[in-house]
Amino acid sequence: MSSTVNKTAHAFDKVRLDALLNRRFFYAPAFEIYGGVAGLYDYGPPGSSLQANLIAEWRKHFIIEEHMLELDTTIMTPAPVFETSGHVARFADWMVKDTKTGDVLRADHLVKNVLEARLAGDKEARGLAAAPVTDDKKKKKKGAKAAAVQLSDEVVKEYETILAQLDNFSGPELGELCRKHKLTNPDTGNEVGEPQQFNLMFLSSIGPTGQHPGYLRPETAQGHFLNFSRLLEFNNGKVPFASAQIGRSFRNEISPRAGLLRVREFTMAEIEHYVDPEDKRHERFHEVRDVVLVLLDRHVQEAGSSTTSRLTVGEAVEKGVIANETLGYFIARIYLFLLKIGINPERLRFRQHMGNEMAHYATDCWDAEIHNATGWTECVGCADRAAYDLSVHSAKTGHPLVVRQALKEPILTEKEVSEWNKKNLGKTFKQDAALIQSLVESMDEPELLRIKGELAQGAAIIKSEDGREFQLTPDVLTVERKTLKQSIREYTPNVIEPSFGLGRILYTLLEHSFWSREQDVERGVLSLPPLVAPTKVLIVPLSARDEFNPLVQEVSSKLRKAGVFSRVDDSNTSIGKRYARNDELGTPFGVTLDFASVQNRTMTLRERDTMDQRIGSIDDVIATVTELVFGNIDWAEACTRLPAYDGVQAID
Amino acid sequence: MSSTVNKTAHAFDKVRLDALLNRRFFYAPAFEIYGGVAGLYDYGPPGSSLQANLIAEWRKHFIIEEHMLELDTTIMTPAPVFETSGHVARFADWMVKDTKTGDVLRADHLVKNVLEARLAGDKEARGLAAAPVTDDKKKKKKGAKAAAVQLSDEVVKEYETILAQLDNFSGPELGELCRKHKLTNPDTGNEVGEPQQFNLMFLSSIGPTGQHPGYLRPETAQGHFLNFSRLLEFNNGKVPFASAQIGRSFRNEISPRAGLLRVREFTMAEIEHYVDPEDKRHERFHEVRDVVLVLLDRHVQEAGSSTTSRLTVGEAVEKGVIANETLGYFIARIYLFLLKIGINPERLRFRQHMGNEMAHYATDCWDAEIHNATGWTECVGCADRAAYDLSVHSAKTGHPLVVRQALKEPILTEKEVSEWNKKNLGKTFKQDAALIQSLVESMDEPELLRIKGELAQGAAIIKSEDGREFQLTPDVLTVERKTLKQSIREYTPNVIEPSFGLGRILYTLLEHSFWSREQDVERGVLSLPPLVAPTKVLIVPLSARDEFNPLVQEVSSKLRKAGVFSRVDDSNTSIGKRYARNDELGTPFGVTLDFASVQNRTMTLRERDTMDQRIGSIDDVIATVTELVFGNIDWAEACTRLPAYDGVQAID
Repeated sequence: MSSTVNKTAHAFDKVRLDALLNRRFFYAPAFEIYGGVAGLYDYGPPGSSLQANLIAEWRKHFIIEEHMLELDTTIMTPAPVFETSGHVARFADWMVKDTKTGDVLRADHLVKNVLEARLAGDKEARGLAAAPVTDDKKKKKKGAKAAAVQLSDEVVKEYETILAQLDNFSGPELGELCRKHKLTNPDTGNEVGEPQQFNLMFLSSIGPTGQHPGYLRPETAQGHFLNFSRLLEFNNGKVPFASAQIGRSFRNEISPRAGLLRVREFTMAEIEHYVDPEDKRHERFHEVRDVVLVLLDRHVQEAGSSTTSRLTVGEAVEKGVIANETLGYFIARIYLFLLKIGINPERLRFRQHMGNEMAHYATDCWDAEIHNATGWTECVGCADRAAYDLSVHSAKTGHPLVVRQALKEPILTEKEVSEWNKKNLGKTFKQDAALIQSLVESMDEPELLRIKGELAQGAAIIKSEDGREFQLTPDVLTVERKTLKQSIREYTPNVIEPSFGLGRILYTLLEHSFWSREQDVERGVLSLPPLVAPTKVLIVPLSARDEFNPLVQEVSSKLRKAGVFSRVDDSNTSIGKRYARNDELGTPFGVTLDFASVQNRTMTLRERDTMDQRIGSIDDVIATVTELVFGNIDWAEACTRLPAYDGVQAID
Repeated sequence: MSSTVNKTAHAFDKVRLDALLNRRFFYAPAFEIYGGVAGLYDYGPPGSSLQANLIAEWRKHFIIEEHMLELDTTIMTPAPVFETSGHVARFADWMVKDTKTGDVLRADHLVKNVLEARLAGDKEARGLAAAPVTDDKKKKKKGAKAAAVQLSDEVVKEYETILAQLDNFSGPELGELCRKHKLTNPDTGNEVGEPQQFNLMFLSSIGPTGQHPGYLRPETAQGHFLNFSRLLEFNNGKVPFASAQIGRSFRNEISPRAGLLRVREFTMAEIEHYVDPEDKRHERFHEVRDVVLVLLDRHVQEAGSSTTSRLTVGEAVEKGVIANETLGYFIARIYLFLLKIGINPERLRFRQHMGNEMAHYATDCWDAEIHNATGWTECVGCADRAAYDLSVHSAKTGHPLVVRQALKEPILTEKEVSEWNKKNLGKTFKQDAALIQSLVESMDEPELLRIKGELAQGAAIIKSEDGREFQLTPDVLTVERKTLKQSIREYTPNVIEPSFGLGRILYTLLEHSFWSREQDVERGVLSLPPLVAPTKVLIVPLSARDEFNPLVQEVSSKLRKAGVFSRVDDSNTSIGKRYARNDELGTPFGVTLDFASVQNRTMTLRERDTMDQRIGSIDDVIATVTELVFGNIDWAEACTRLPAYDGVQAID
């Protein structure tokens, strides 16, 4: 037993972590007994609980804290919606086919994998220590040749520049890169064909006739936009406000191989914050002004570099690095959320999209990227979609998706206005009356002034498109200057969209939480914060004997009443093994019930990371562990309340 | 202001309720601005909250209370899974086509609608008061002819018998009914063709090559079954246990028209409880033994009747009406859950499926049916799927989905056992050796005894299927009686499956909660229990003026800390109108902040149903309303703590 913890005694080992997550059923390939399907994963009990806890905290941090309007819209979406939104035409990735086997690869991934492998081979040839990243081993297995071949300095520089700008290349450019640098399918060594676009949406058909194509949504966002009028009304017509939705989305990825980091079905949490395009300040910006962020802006990347800078959100907005307060506010709130659930801030950065990389609907976008064994991975996007979506749906359906704002001060404008004597108009021009009226009413101010002048002279001449001339006299038409009062301003709001991929966050969190005991690399631990840990307290009776049952029931029931989720492990194995299993499950605290508990009503409390054990009365331990779980006290504080346990049983 | 409430002053009006639910955005047709799609609905803020609260309570009542193992498996499912499960062949409804327009109708719904309309017409013709159900009006609009035509007593009897057994008819039988009773499309009056099967699963394709068909799951169950081995291991190999999952499922309904009661995409909550087929007792059965249920068993229905009986769960299991304790336990738990969330027990019954009605995987099934304006609707199914699913997946994949139970007392059996001298066997029979061995080892006991006898005589003759004879001698084969010890029992567990359609429960709950104020039918109220109400407390400042802001913030923050979800309504309208709006939203309590609050720190508390108002210090009111929300006290008790308010402002 020791309270000094060295979490970095062993280098991070992805193979070991993946084995743990599989063994403890955090998640596993879906349909595994049928051979599995790439990019589809099932979450087992600990994974489901972890996900549910992340969602609960997300709901608190965003929806409840900011009074967002929650939605739950359908996944199945009729095709016209995505035709309008641009997804049918443009929500696609570039794929290349192996010219011999017909295997399909994502073009940008091919470029990345082969160039990275060549750079690694170059480092090896130069005798430089290549970081021993587990993932590289896997790539080798898959066939990416990392032969120790030295490259010229120019080539190294060129490859590095390509990799820094990778997300910015078009399909034809990727094809050009493949030809120029002789990039072949690493699995077979065969050449690949020209990049072709592959739409990432799953297609199906709604109803029994087969006549109504539908797509599975690739994002929840359209469900928000289509309901904008109802949401605005629910919010009593006031802007800014936000809608939020947590739900499943689908992307038919070309060749997903990266575990939870690239999947075909995933849970998203999306916010659409509607804001006046002329005023993107945020009333709570002062609360986050001093949050320090690591930023990688588009200019740096476009210059071929990956050098980040450290700025407060306030500075970033002032300098125009981040475009406006609302975008800055949400980037900071995303940062605070990720820290709260346990992401390591040293492995978190915000990267701005480059011009060509941006989704078709976005005008600016920052990704929260979390570092993991495969590199930096986008886990949250924060895009300014401007008025794109609301405008296109409104134009397509004729349903106005706008805000009508009562102006405090009406706007007064002076204008030339035509006034008709309808009776004379009809009598004089008969079936041409409507044509004449529309001709005049579509005139701009200078033209109207000309008419006004001519009328003052007695008569004005106008021409129709087909060349006919009509003579108007003051008994039919007068033009007068009038003062018009506009008391309503109508505008399409802009949308700031923070969009979370929960599976990616969950996986990177597991990586950041994983380490092995100094004395035994086989003893893995997941140091998940109590806030999100699947189980908060493990109840461990010395054995499954009946005499411990009443106490187990009592402790279990008292913890439940205190709102603390516990589990009992009375399996037929040593207490040490049971604790080791729960270290792998990330359970932060354990309590042990033994013969002393039966006799004296005492209970020991064990902390996962330090394996420290304390002892106290059952009720004291329950009170202490409850405060620990809710984050009111830390372990040091708990140690001042409960004495150390140095009992007879060697428990670890 | 009055504390006597008459909730039945006005007859239930579905049109009024539907208008309310739409106006307040509980839910609305999805893609409404694109014209909508039948059977797809979006939930707005109050609907989403109500659903989230139902799910939270479900999780507590089932998953946490019974330590179930939660799962989150994928919706997209490769076709082989549903081929094995039988869904590709049999998860279908019968549809008929209008012979002229080609419109598609569900065959059983056609029979039901037309016969019910004729019976209603008959009642009208006989001058009997037909119940003025709103839905009937709608049907008339849709064209089902309810002309006041009197039928013969025999025909009435025949129609009623058909309707009682409707779910039991096969497709051809439904076709026969259409011909015999001249049932035509009520929308057009045209004849319909022969019933054809239509598979209800949405089909798509996984991956870029188009070679891997996938279905959207129509239930979450298969995701449980395929993970059975992992779940069992997670549970330390112990049975019984249950897995649980809350998630989206899809059914491509033929012609959905019944709002949330029949949709193409819906959220389910499913439990799969794995149990020893030889012991279906339940250790907590005593806790529910005395729960009284309204039951409609299959025999009563098959006799053409709908007469229910009232039994305790204990009696029902003893009499064999409900097959076993575990099934009975879950039926009772379902009943208790539905009552807890606010379903009217007088409008709840459990109906057993008839033989032909049962899903292909079930051996017994009881539906919790909830009465509503359209009749009795299945909202929860509780099926005994026996070993069906685990067996078929195991057989298909070769992956054993079984429980291995260490027997406390090994089972000893005596058996004739063949023993080979492999060397002599090979030498004597060469390439036939394996055939001979397999022939003997597939023999039953009497045959082996014959061989044993013949060997004792010097040689035994055996025949292969192709008629060849082999002579075996004791130097090749001996047969001896041995005592075998079996210490592991291997079995495929049976599965009891409670399966909840959350949308149907949500809708029927809204119906059961809806009424109008006695003095004004326009003033609708949703009397949702605080447990599930979208918002628990409405905070109403007299106006949006700045002077109320600090108090609004204080009350809002104190309620949040107490775990009570509140909303502020500072919109620019009278307090009475704001309360009326929140009666429609089902908000059980309201607190008003006015000038007295600013001066004296008092606050009034309003109860939704009675419109009673009490007054107290801000902190007393917060304490009282918190206890009300958590169900620790009722309104009568609250009234003893806070004096009645008879202030100057007429608030309602």
